[in-house]
Amino acid sequence: MKLMPLGDKVVVKQLEAIETTKSGIVLAGNAKEKPQEAEIIAVGPGGVVDGKEIKMEVKVGQKVIYSKYSGTEVKLDGEEYIILKQSDILAIVED
Amino acid sequence: MKLMPLGDKVVVKQLEAIETTKSGIVLAGNAKEKPQEAEIIAVGPGGVVDGKEIKMEVKVGQKVIYSKYSGTEVKLDGEEYIILKQSDILAIVED
Amino acid sequence: MKLMPLGDKVVVKQLEAIETTKSGIVLAGNAKEKPQEAEIIAVGPGGVVDGKEIKMEVKVGQKVIYSKYSGTEVKLDGEEYIILKQSDILAIVED
Amino acid sequence: MKLMPLGDKVVVKQLEAIETTKSGIVLAGNAKEKPQEAEIIAVGPGGVVDGKEIKMEVKVGQKVIYSKYSGTEVKLDGEEYIILKQSDILAIVED
Amino acid sequence: MKLMPLGDKVVVKQLEAIETTKSGIVLAGNAKEKPQEAEIIAVGPGGVVDGKEIKMEVKVGQKVIYSKYSGTEVKLDGEEYIILKQSDILAIVED
Amino acid sequence: MKLMPLGDKVVVKQLEAIETTKSGIVLAGNAKEKPQEAEIIAVGPGGVVDGKEIKMEVKVGQKVIYSKYSGTEVKLDGEEYIILKQSDILAIVED
Amino acid sequence: MKLMPLGDKVVVKQLEAIETTKSGIVLAGNAKEKPQEAEIIAVGPGGVVDGKEIKMEVKVGQKVIYSKYSGTEVKLDGEEYIILKQSDILAIVED
Repeated sequence: MKLMPLGDKVVVKQLEAIETTKSGIVLAGNAKEKPQEAEIIAVGPGGVVDGKEIKMEVKVGQKVIYSKYSGTEVKLDGEEYIILKQSDILAIVED
Repeated sequence: MKLMPLGDKVVVKQLEAIETTKSGIVLAGNAKEKPQEAEIIAVGPGGVVDGKEIKMEVKVGQKVIYSKYSGTEVKLDGEEYIILKQSDILAIVED
Repeated sequence: MKLMPLGDKVVVKQLEAIETTKSGIVLAGNAKEKPQEAEIIAVGPGGVVDGKEIKMEVKVGQKVIYSKYSGTEVKLDGEEYIILKQSDILAIVED
Repeated sequence: MKLMPLGDKVVVKQLEAIETTKSGIVLAGNAKEKPQEAEIIAVGPGGVVDGKEIKMEVKVGQKVIYSKYSGTEVKLDGEEYIILKQSDILAIVED
Repeated sequence: MKLMPLGDKVVVKQLEAIETTKSGIVLAGNAKEKPQEAEIIAVGPGGVVDGKEIKMEVKVGQKVIYSKYSGTEVKLDGEEYIILKQSDILAIVED
Repeated sequence: MKLMPLGDKVVVKQLEAIETTKSGIVLAGNAKEKPQEAEIIAVGPGGVVDGKEIKMEVKVGQKVIYSKYSGTEVKLDGEEYIILKQSDILAIVED
Repeated sequence: MKLMPLGDKVVVKQLEAIETTKSGIVLAGNAKEKPQEAEIIAVGPGGVVDGKEIKMEVKVGQKVIYSKYSGTEVKLDGEEYIILKQSDILAIVED
């Protein structure tokens, strides 16, 4: 069973926001709009979304930073996921 | 008697949001904007909607996740339906 | 005496929202934005509206579902009508 | 002395909203956004307004229904007029 | 010393809003958004404003009606002026 | 050390708003959105800004009127400047 | 480990806002929307963002002024960064 995002949607799995993660990302505690680190699980096909051609720039397996209050949470087979628009992703975290 | 959605509208039938459904989807209880699982009953023809060409990507019978506060509820022959815009659908749930 | 809607406007006559109508439509009582069943009385010519080409998809005599808080009520010769934009119509009800 | 509306503006003279007018229009008393019957006194030239080509569809002398809270009231030679955008006009009332 | 408006801006000098002016215009006292009569003092060059081609339709010396809460008041050499966008002008008052 | 504005941005230095300035400009005290006189210090290159081609119309050294609540204040080498968008400039003051 | 911004995003490192910095910039204390000086750490590729072609104008190493309440704070390897859209950058500070 899988989530297949539509259009410019992306399914991500949130990584735990601990003080110092293995990858070294720590979310700023007093930021008004908290950033979040997540791993990309599925990527929509892109195409014309709301009258605009969207090209998907992210790939499954990438770690990304996104804005917390964007996206919708879902649970699938006991795992929690977030469905975001690609434009809610701010940056890719590279090792 | 049938509902024939116009433009980019889609008619869906909401699946019950129980703790663990047969398909394994459980809605996150503390999400601000609760996602919903539903089955697609009818799909509008697409075409030019609000000046933008919309191509319908979803099909009757698919299970989808959509944002709860989008859409309008109607009852037809004792059954409740939701009329959504296709853009309110976030992802297709595949078995 | 007749109402001739302009542009993308449509004149509809609201059908009574009873528990079970002849056509089987019952409006969901606890919906935030209540849907409404109505019959189309007059359809505007379409054309360029707010810079966008609008093609009218509905016809006089069709029964439709629309969002309650859209539209403007008028009374003509003792009958009440609603003037809607076509985009406020969600679906056509077919027998 | 005359009011010459610019662009997509239209000058109308409001008809009295009595219980049953000569033309048979009665405004719905409990409508949130009360419709209004008025006669068209002057019509702007249309043309490009806010980057969009507007073609004027109404003519001097027509009776129209418009949304009450749109438009600006002015008095000229002791007569009150309303200056509307054409898009605030919902329908033409024909005898 | 002169005010040279940019783009679609227009400099006007407000005429006094008395009960019955020489030109016969009287502003409606209970209008929510009070119209105003003013004389045009300077007209911007038009051209592309906010991505849209604007052609200036008004001329220095014309009397116009505009919406009160639009525009910015300035004083130059002891005289008060208002700087409006041309789209805030509703109609030209002709004698 | 210099501020080089990007896109359609303009750096201005506010002139003191005294009762009667040397140039004769006095800001209206009871205006809701107070206009401001300023001198242009630096002008961005223009070009495509937010998808729209912007041509810069103002020049270093010009005195301009702008809306007070637009812009961002910065201090550089002890001097205060304001960074505006060109569209926040209403008019040029010519001697 | 690096942050690779997407689209029109830019990663900056905020410089301390002290009364008189080495570069001479002092942020105005009573500004409603406080400007901020920062150094650019990474620049997105630009391209089509929200249907608009964006060309990146800033470079790694430049010092810039941006609006405080724009952007999202992240911590990477113990350092705090801000992820901005290029359009949130007001000016480049040149020595």
